Amino acid sequence: MTEISRSAGVLLEALRAQRPLVQNITNFVSMDVAANALLAIGASPAMVHAPEETPEFLGFAGALVVNIGTLSAQWVESMHVAASSALAIGKPWALDPVGAGATSFRNHVIEHLIALKPALIRGNASEIMAVAKIAGVDVAAARPKGVDSANATAEAEGAAQALAARLGCVVAATGAVDFITDGTRAIRFANGSPLMERVTALGCALTGVCGAFLALEKDAFIATAAAIAIYGVAGEMAAEGAAGPGSFRVAFLDRLAAITPAEVAARLKVVA
Amino acid sequence: MTEISRSAGVLLEALRAQRPLVQNITNFVSMDVAANALLAIGASPAMVHAPEETPEFLGFAGALVVNIGTLSAQWVESMHVAASSALAIGKPWALDPVGAGATSFRNHVIEHLIALKPALIRGNASEIMAVAKIAGVDVAAARPKGVDSANATAEAEGAAQALAARLGCVVAATGAVDFITDGTRAIRFANGSPLMERVTALGCALTGVCGAFLALEKDAFIATAAAIAIYGVAGEMAAEGAAGPGSFRVAFLDRLAAITPAEVAARLKVVA
Amino acid sequence: MTEISRSAGVLLEALRAQRPLVQNITNFVSMDVAANALLAIGASPAMVHAPEETPEFLGFAGALVVNIGTLSAQWVESMHVAASSALAIGKPWALDPVGAGATSFRNHVIEHLIALKPALIRGNASEIMAVAKIAGVDVAAARPKGVDSANATAEAEGAAQALAARLGCVVAATGAVDFITDGTRAIRFANGSPLMERVTALGCALTGVCGAFLALEKDAFIATAAAIAIYGVAGEMAAEGAAGPGSFRVAFLDRLAAITPAEVAARLKVVA
Repeated sequence: MTEISRSAGVLLEALRAQRPLVQNITNFVSMDVAANALLAIGASPAMVHAPEETPEFLGFAGALVVNIGTLSAQWVESMHVAASSALAIGKPWALDPVGAGATSFRNHVIEHLIALKPALIRGNASEIMAVAKIAGVDVAAARPKGVDSANATAEAEGAAQALAARLGCVVAATGAVDFITDGTRAIRFANGSPLMERVTALGCALTGVCGAFLALEKDAFIATAAAIAIYGVAGEMAAEGAAGPGSFRVAFLDRLAAITPAEVAARLKVVA
Repeated sequence: MTEISRSAGVLLEALRAQRPLVQNITNFVSMDVAANALLAIGASPAMVHAPEETPEFLGFAGALVVNIGTLSAQWVESMHVAASSALAIGKPWALDPVGAGATSFRNHVIEHLIALKPALIRGNASEIMAVAKIAGVDVAAARPKGVDSANATAEAEGAAQALAARLGCVVAATGAVDFITDGTRAIRFANGSPLMERVTALGCALTGVCGAFLALEKDAFIATAAAIAIYGVAGEMAAEGAAGPGSFRVAFLDRLAAITPAEVAARLKVVA
Repeated sequence: MTEISRSAGVLLEALRAQRPLVQNITNFVSMDVAANALLAIGASPAMVHAPEETPEFLGFAGALVVNIGTLSAQWVESMHVAASSALAIGKPWALDPVGAGATSFRNHVIEHLIALKPALIRGNASEIMAVAKIAGVDVAAARPKGVDSANATAEAEGAAQALAARLGCVVAATGAVDFITDGTRAIRFANGSPLMERVTALGCALTGVCGAFLALEKDAFIATAAAIAIYGVAGEMAAEGAAGPGSFRVAFLDRLAAITPAEVAARLKVVA
């Protein structure tokens, strides 16, 4: 058993015992599945976004997750109030930069949010490279030469590491391979299933689950790696009996609720 | 067969024959499952919230449900216009005070809404106690002494009864035990399943279903008790074959569509 | 094999190869299931509505879908900006006029949107008749005499044809029978299942899927007929093993992902 699978098991049991409250400001598409993934794994989700109540609510929450999927000017204001409040009172918060790089409006929103010191930025490879560019990382220089480009995550590893170092946070680029780094430490997992990309908002829900682990564990690198390890193993197990994306989603929520530390330890594929 | 299970059966058949139109102003998390629960049981849901059309739309609807889960200033305005319209034209409306007590913003919204004479307030024990406090009930005095505190609903019964009497409406505190009262009459059920709390927004969806019964039955105590009885029995039956929260949600919607008056009568646990 | 089932098969394979990006401005209820239906069939959905980014985003998208289910003044503005942008840059866009005829606010929104030249308007029979009336069609005169009124679509055929001719677009009235026309050509299908009306937003999701086909095929009549043919056959196949609306939704998403051109050809019921 690797050290990370041991930590993941300990944190999974702590999560189910403590049921951390996670405040989510998330997109309309992911509202249902992100709340259900948090409930399934054992956390307590709250979808609260009004600026009038966020600072007060955040006082009770263990962590905040901000997801920019379905932006509008009003929601951007909610996100700023929430992230600023989290920074002010020292609550960890995670950013899911959905669609980073797609439009200048979106990039502008990200530029302001990353100045508010997220503990974690989680996205797919292309999103992480776009955020790194917004943060001033020379992404072209950070791109590896001669790497199998079928592995999208590998393309983003340099950008992720530079971004993490620059912002002093954890960055996770997830996909067929997941890469998690705090700029110094780094780890890669190869679990999950292609079906995870055929169900909407499972990436958003993963950032939500990372939020629950950030509420439990001060070392954001360990917290994030644990969350992603468990999520990937659960996805892989759920895919085994699924007939397609509909039944996969159902099985995945069942599995998040049932997964044990022993299963994570037995199945986690840490890759060099 | 108890009188309430007889009423529940009659109303269930009436609902399926008449397909009452229920206008819902609900939170983003519950939009999908609340609409699906209403469709499954046989009602016709409409998620309409624009102040520009609510008064006109409510003319066709049988009842209105207002759920404050994901608040914002604009949605608060929608809720006020809708509840005021319902009051003005005499349509029954139900309030789901999600997160009552969590923030002063939320409490303020509730204070204004309960002045608009809801026919029903449905929440969990903690929400009902918070609403009672907002309404001026002495909740500490209403709390029972020496009661098994593992039964959260029991803690809220006194507050629920005082709240119902003060506002002249029906109050339902639901959980492992459900308590429904109009201030004079009261009834308790002990159906359902712990899995119902592992799926997001099933409480919100229950308030939606209560709305459908309020559209059919003028006695809001009978309407609410019937809705909660059927919902709890459906949940209990659905849980029997479920592998976790994902498959439970699927089975629950199937069961709401299939449940019969005879099943409700055979399984309803009315507790003293 | 009919010509339309041949086209549907060719387009289905093209869709899975090309994964067209479809921008959706849709209602809160359908966000999850519309995105999941698009992912299941093989397209790439994006729920983007901010006026600040829509014109830029639409440059990458293959088509736009506008669904007016959960209206508010702000979303109306988003819809106008998006449809105007689509018109300006020549991207096909589809309108789903949810609740047409229910309120004057809703009718007013539709009146402005249909002036922006949608490639497709898809709704149920009552919605299509309401849109036709808004567009100035004499709906009473267009209603057939002596037709079996249990077939709601038949009532709307004349209105659909006149609406399509007047606006120069494709109009689809879907239900137990689906009727698709561009004012000159017309086709009817009789697949699907009554369970499709017991799951919320499957009509909305169909308009989303039509958008994916509009992105692939310039002839909007062929694109729409192909999408509706595949969707109806998938629904019919999914219903065969379903125990109710919950399991039907799961099976339907599985089936959208698995359905083959041969299955569409074997099962499509084109009716005279």
